[in-house]
Amino acid sequence: MSGQPRHIQHGSRAAVAPGLADVSIGPATKFARLPDPFHFWRGGTLNDGVVAYETWGELNDARDNAILLFTGLSPSAHAASSSADPSPGWWEKMVGAGKAIDTDRYFVVCVNSLGSCFGSSGPASVDPATGLAYRLDFPDLSIEDIARGGYETIRALGIERLSAVIGASLGGMAVLAFATQFAGVARRVVSISGSPAAMPYAIALRSTQRDAILTDPDWQDGQYAGDVRPVTGMRIARKLGTLTYRSAAEWKHRFGRRPASDRRYEALPPGRAHFPAEFAIQDYLNLQADKFVSSFDPNCYLYLSRAIDRFDLAAHGGSAKAAIERARAEKALVIGVESDILFTINEQRAIADAFEAAGAETEFVPLASLEGHDAFLVDIEPFAAAIGRFLAPD
Amino acid sequence: MSGQPRHIQHGSRAAVAPGLADVSIGPATKFARLPDPFHFWRGGTLNDGVVAYETWGELNDARDNAILLFTGLSPSAHAASSSADPSPGWWEKMVGAGKAIDTDRYFVVCVNSLGSCFGSSGPASVDPATGLAYRLDFPDLSIEDIARGGYETIRALGIERLSAVIGASLGGMAVLAFATQFAGVARRVVSISGSPAAMPYAIALRSTQRDAILTDPDWQDGQYAGDVRPVTGMRIARKLGTLTYRSAAEWKHRFGRRPASDRRYEALPPGRAHFPAEFAIQDYLNLQADKFVSSFDPNCYLYLSRAIDRFDLAAHGGSAKAAIERARAEKALVIGVESDILFTINEQRAIADAFEAAGAETEFVPLASLEGHDAFLVDIEPFAAAIGRFLAPD
Repeated sequence: MSGQPRHIQHGSRAAVAPGLADVSIGPATKFARLPDPFHFWRGGTLNDGVVAYETWGELNDARDNAILLFTGLSPSAHAASSSADPSPGWWEKMVGAGKAIDTDRYFVVCVNSLGSCFGSSGPASVDPATGLAYRLDFPDLSIEDIARGGYETIRALGIERLSAVIGASLGGMAVLAFATQFAGVARRVVSISGSPAAMPYAIALRSTQRDAILTDPDWQDGQYAGDVRPVTGMRIARKLGTLTYRSAAEWKHRFGRRPASDRRYEALPPGRAHFPAEFAIQDYLNLQADKFVSSFDPNCYLYLSRAIDRFDLAAHGGSAKAAIERARAEKALVIGVESDILFTINEQRAIADAFEAAGAETEFVPLASLEGHDAFLVDIEPFAAAIGRFLAPD
Repeated sequence: MSGQPRHIQHGSRAAVAPGLADVSIGPATKFARLPDPFHFWRGGTLNDGVVAYETWGELNDARDNAILLFTGLSPSAHAASSSADPSPGWWEKMVGAGKAIDTDRYFVVCVNSLGSCFGSSGPASVDPATGLAYRLDFPDLSIEDIARGGYETIRALGIERLSAVIGASLGGMAVLAFATQFAGVARRVVSISGSPAAMPYAIALRSTQRDAILTDPDWQDGQYAGDVRPVTGMRIARKLGTLTYRSAAEWKHRFGRRPASDRRYEALPPGRAHFPAEFAIQDYLNLQADKFVSSFDPNCYLYLSRAIDRFDLAAHGGSAKAAIERARAEKALVIGVESDILFTINEQRAIADAFEAAGAETEFVPLASLEGHDAFLVDIEPFAAAIGRFLAPD
C-alpha cells in the first residue's frame, strides 16, 4: 500500500444484472475501486470490485478528521441527506451539521457493505469475466471482508488514520473486525448493538430466515431471474427479521390488540382469505415485508445474513479479548439495549470489558429502550447523546 | 343437560381422511361423543363430533376426585403411560401414581383439543355428511370451543364437578375459558403459562408461522391430499415455534457455537448445499421440524394457532377480571416463567391478580427457569413441586 490515494471512480458503479436488484443508487453515491484482485478472508478473489460510499463534510488538511461508518444488514450508504442527495438517509437524525456525528467538524464516510446490493460488489452484480451476475459464484463473504471494504475505501480517499470508526448491528461487528484487522488505524471505536460472535438464539433466528428463502421454489437455487423472485420466502424472512429487531413491550404499547385495517386479503384466493390478517400488528408486518421485497436482493441477503452468523472475533488471536487487544484503540464507546434479543446486552458488556482490558478509555452505555435491536434507528436521542459526548473535542 | 352420563364410544374415533393426518391414536384413547349438533362459540355447528381422551386412576363413588387436563397446541391426550398404553406421555413426570398429579388419588382426564388431529374432530377429520375431510369447512374454532369439548367429555363421564382443571400454554387459555364458561364446575384452577389475551408480539410470531404454511404452494388452499403436503411451510413454522418455546439463555448453554454434525445438506441441490447448516442449533431446529411435519396436520395447526391469537377473556363480561370473577373458583394456582417471550410473566401476574380479586385463595409462582415457554415440559421439578403442594389434601 503506497499511501497515495488510488484512482476513485465517480459516477460509475458495479453493474447489477437486470431483475436481480432493481434498486436505485442515489445521486450522492461514489465508488471506490478495490485492489485487483481483492482477496476474501475465507479464500476466493474478486476482480474489478467496488465499494459504494457517500461522504459528508470535508477532509481537513491534516487528514485526521475522518469517521468511517458501517451499516446494519439492509441499508445503503445513504446515511443522511446532502446537497447532492437531499432525500433523508437511514441515520438522518444522527449525521449532519451540528448533530451528534457533526459534519461541520468531521469528514464522514459511510460504506455500503461489500456483498450488499446498493452499489458495492455482491452476488447481484455482474462478473466482468462472464458478463453474468455472480449469484452464488460470488466468493464466501465474511464480516472481515466488509471491514476491509471500508478500509480500502478510506485508503482510496487518502486517509491513513480515522478519528473514529462507528457501526451498529452487522456494522457493529464490522467495527470490531476493522479495529482488529487494521490495528491503530481507528483512534476511537463506537460499537453499537454488535457482537464478538453470534449466539445460538440469534443464529436460529437468522438461519430460519434464510431457510424461508432457500426453500422457496422461486429462489431456483439462486438462479432466479426476471420477475420471478423468491418473494414468498423474502416476505417470511423479513417478518421474522422485524420480530427480532423490535420488542414485545414496544408492540404491546403501539399495537395492542387493535384490529387490522388492511383489506388486501379480500382479493386473496378462498383458502388464504380464510385466514386474513386480523390484528394491526399483522398489517405492520405485511408493510415491512412489502418494503423489503421491493428493495433487497435475496442472494445478497443470504450472503450477509450468513456472514453475521459465522463471525467470530476469537478467530483473531484465540479470544475476543485478545483480538480487541490488537486493535490499539485509544477510546471506545459501547452502546447496547437491554431489550435486544438478537445482540444481547451481555454481548455488549463483553465488548466493553475487552476494550477496557486492552487499555482503551472505555465507556459502556446500556440503554433501557423499549425498541429492542433497532433502537439505534428509532429511539435516536439516547444514542445521539452518548455519541455526541464521545465525539466532542477532547 | 340431564346430569346422566351420555353414551360413550369406546374403540371408535373420528375418521381421518387418508393423507391428511397420518398419526397413530394410542390404544388407551377413548372417545366422548359431543352433543349433536355441537354449536361453536363464533357460530357454525358440527355433527357427530367427538373428543378423544385418556384417563388415569379411578373416579371415586362421590365423583368428586376428577381432574381435567387441557394440552398445549400440539400434544395428544396421551399425557402419561398406563397399562393400556405403556408408551411415555407428554407429561410423564407429572401424571402418575405418587406424582404431583397423583393418579392414586385423582381420576385424571386429558382431552385432545377439539380441532386437533389426534382423534378429536377437526379440519382433518371426515365430515359424515359428505364423506370428505372438513378441511377449511370445519367451523371457526375458538378456545371457548376447546374448553367446551373438555366440559362435554367430563359430562359424558358422569362428572358434574371437578376437583381441579389444569392446563398449560393453549391449555392455560382453555382453563380460563373453562372456568369462565362453566362457573363453579372446577373447584380449583391451575393455569400455567397461559394468557387472558395474546399480546401483539406473540400474535406476530404465530401469524408468521401460519403465513409460512399459507404461502407454501403445496398447501393448495387447504386442499392438499396424498403425499403432497405443505412440508416446507410446516418446517419453517415449527422452527419459528421452537424459537418461541425456548430461551436464548438455554441455547447459549446447550449449543453455544458448536458446529453442525448433520450432513444431510450434502445431498441437497447445489444452491441449497451452498448454505448448509453450520451450527448445532441448526441441526436441532431441523430435527424439531422433522418430528412435527410427520405428526401434525397443517390445517389443524392453522386452526389452533389462530384460535390462540383470537382468544380474549375480556369477551366474557368486559374484562379479564370480570370474566374470572364469574368462575367462582375456590383456589387458584398460577405458574409462569420469567424467560417466556410468548406468554409473558406479566400475563401470568394479571391472571393471578384476577383470581385474587375474585376471592379465590390464590398462589402465584413465577419461576426463574431458563427454559422459556416450554419449561413446563422440560424443567419439570419446580412445576411438580408447586402443583403437588396445591393438590395435596386440604
